[in-house]
Amino acid sequence: MQQATSSTSQSTSAYFEEERSADVVNARMGDAVSPRLKQVMSVLVKHLHAAVKEIEPTHDEWFAAIRFLTETGQMCNEWRQEYILLSDILGVSMLVDAINHRRPNGATPNTILGPFYVADAPQYDNGANICLDGKGEPLVVCGRVTDIAGKPIPNAKLEVWQTNDDGFYDVQQKGIQPDSNLRGVFTSDGEGYYSFKSVKPRHYPIPADGPVGKLLGAMGRHPNRAAHLHFIVTAPGYDAVITHIFTPDCPYLPEDAVFGVKRELIADFKQVNDMDAAQTVGLEAPFWSVTWDFTLAPSSKPPRATL
Amino acid sequence: MQQATSSTSQSTSAYFEEERSADVVNARMGDAVSPRLKQVMSVLVKHLHAAVKEIEPTHDEWFAAIRFLTETGQMCNEWRQEYILLSDILGVSMLVDAINHRRPNGATPNTILGPFYVADAPQYDNGANICLDGKGEPLVVCGRVTDIAGKPIPNAKLEVWQTNDDGFYDVQQKGIQPDSNLRGVFTSDGEGYYSFKSVKPRHYPIPADGPVGKLLGAMGRHPNRAAHLHFIVTAPGYDAVITHIFTPDCPYLPEDAVFGVKRELIADFKQVNDMDAAQTVGLEAPFWSVTWDFTLAPSSKPPRATL
Repeated sequence: MQQATSSTSQSTSAYFEEERSADVVNARMGDAVSPRLKQVMSVLVKHLHAAVKEIEPTHDEWFAAIRFLTETGQMCNEWRQEYILLSDILGVSMLVDAINHRRPNGATPNTILGPFYVADAPQYDNGANICLDGKGEPLVVCGRVTDIAGKPIPNAKLEVWQTNDDGFYDVQQKGIQPDSNLRGVFTSDGEGYYSFKSVKPRHYPIPADGPVGKLLGAMGRHPNRAAHLHFIVTAPGYDAVITHIFTPDCPYLPEDAVFGVKRELIADFKQVNDMDAAQTVGLEAPFWSVTWDFTLAPSSKPPRATL
Repeated sequence: MQQATSSTSQSTSAYFEEERSADVVNARMGDAVSPRLKQVMSVLVKHLHAAVKEIEPTHDEWFAAIRFLTETGQMCNEWRQEYILLSDILGVSMLVDAINHRRPNGATPNTILGPFYVADAPQYDNGANICLDGKGEPLVVCGRVTDIAGKPIPNAKLEVWQTNDDGFYDVQQKGIQPDSNLRGVFTSDGEGYYSFKSVKPRHYPIPADGPVGKLLGAMGRHPNRAAHLHFIVTAPGYDAVITHIFTPDCPYLPEDAVFGVKRELIADFKQVNDMDAAQTVGLEAPFWSVTWDFTLAPSSKPPRATL
C-alpha cells in the first residue's frame, strides 16, 4: 500500500481525475516493484492514456477493442500465434528486431525470424539443390560470408528456408511437399564462399482468417508477404544474422504485410539464358541467378537484462 | 494497394526504417478505409511505436508481452472478461467513462458500471430493506433527486446494488445468498425524495486468479475495491447517471484497484446511536445513516458516431 491513509487532503491526489489519469495510475505502483517492470508499465500507461485521450473512444468503440483483444487471444493455439501476427502487421515485430540488432554500417541488417524456421534442417554440400518437389523456376544462389573489413569467414553456417512455388513452406504442407523441401544448412568454404540451387521464391499470404486478418482488411491492406528467402548466418565471434533476401520484381515489395522489407535486402535476381552457364551449374537454361554476400559484425555485448 | 509499383526511388519510403517506423506503418492504410478507423489505428500505432522506442524491449520481454496478451484473452469466458479487468486496473475504463460523461459543474459524476449490474431487479417502495440475508451493520440511505438548479425530479428511477457483508454480490453466490439480495429499484416521490434500508457495504477483491491479478501483484498492488454502493439514476429528459457512493472509512479508498473513487463520491456515513431515530426507521440502534442527493444534468446531445 502506497497510501494507507484515507484522510482527505493528502490522499486527494490518489483519486481519479481525467486530466491526471496516467499519473494517478502510475503513482499506485508499489515501492518494492522490479525497477524494469515499473519503467515498462509506466511508459505503457502513459502512452495508453495519451492514445485514449486523443481517440476519445465511445463506450461501443472501447468494447469493440475489448472484443478484438479477447478474440485475438482466443485464436491462439499450439500452432497459431495471433498476437505475434498482430505485432507483425503493426510493424512492432520489425521495430523490436531493429532495436535489438543495431549494427555497424556495412553489416547485413537483421529481420524477423518468422514462424517457419525449423532447427536441424538437412546439411548439404555447397552446390546442392534444396528444391525437392521440382516445382518453380530454377535459381542459383551464391556469395561470400565476410567480416566488415571484407575478410572472408570460413566455416560460417548458413541456414536457408523458403516457400515452394505454390507459396507454402514444407511445414505448412506436411504429406503434400517432401519433408525438408526448400530448406537446408550450408557451410562457407575456406574463402568464405557458399552456393546452392533452389527455385525463385513466391509471395504468400500470412494467415488472414482470424481477427488480425479482419483488421488488415478493414485497414485496406492485403495479407501478402513479398517473395523472399530466409537466412540465418552464424560464425563464432560474430553476431548471428537472421535475415531475408527479396526478389526485386515482386509486386508486394513495397507492401509486405509485416514490413519485413529493408531496402538493403532487395537482391539482384538475374535471368540467365546461356546453355554453357546452365550446364556448369547443372541446370537447364533459362535459370535465375543471385549473388548475395553476408557481412557479419563482431559479437556485440551480452544482451540487456530482461524482466 | 496503395503503392502498386516496385520501382526504387519513389517506393523507398514504404520500406521499414527504425526512425520512421510508425509513419511507414500508417502510410500503408488504404484510401477507402473508414475515416474513424483510420484515425483510431493511426493514433494507436503512433503511441505503440513511441512506447516500444521508449521501452526498448528485449526479444524476451516482447515475447513475455505476447504471452500475457494471449493468456488474458484465453482467461475470458461467458462469465469472466479479463480484458475489461485489464482496462479497469490500468485506469482505462475510468478514463473512457470520464471522456463520455463530461457533465456541467454540480452534476453527479459518473463512474464505471462494473460487471455485477442486473437489469430487472425487484421494485420496492421507498423505505424498504434490500438486505435479505440479515448480515452486516444496518444502514439507512435517503436523499433527493434534483436538477442542477435544485428543482426536485419526481418519478426518477434509482437502481441500487452492493455486496453483502461477506464482500460478495448475490450473482457471485447463487444458492448461497437469497436471490436479489442487496439490489432493488426505487422511485423518487413527488418532491424528489427516495429512501431505503440496507447494510454498510464492504470492500471486496476483483478476481485476481488470472494474468491481470498476477500483473497487479507484480506491480505491488492489491485487488481490493473500496466499499461502495452502486446506483443508476434515470429520469426522462436527463442524462442517466451510473455512479458509486463510497464509505469514508474504508482503508482502500485511496487505493481502489480500478480507480473508481472520485473525491466527490465519498459520502458521509454517520453512526446513529439513538433509540427513537432507530424506531422511526424500523431498525435497532446503533445503525448507519447516509444522506445522498443526485443531481442530474439535462440530456446531452446524441452519442458520437462510432466505428
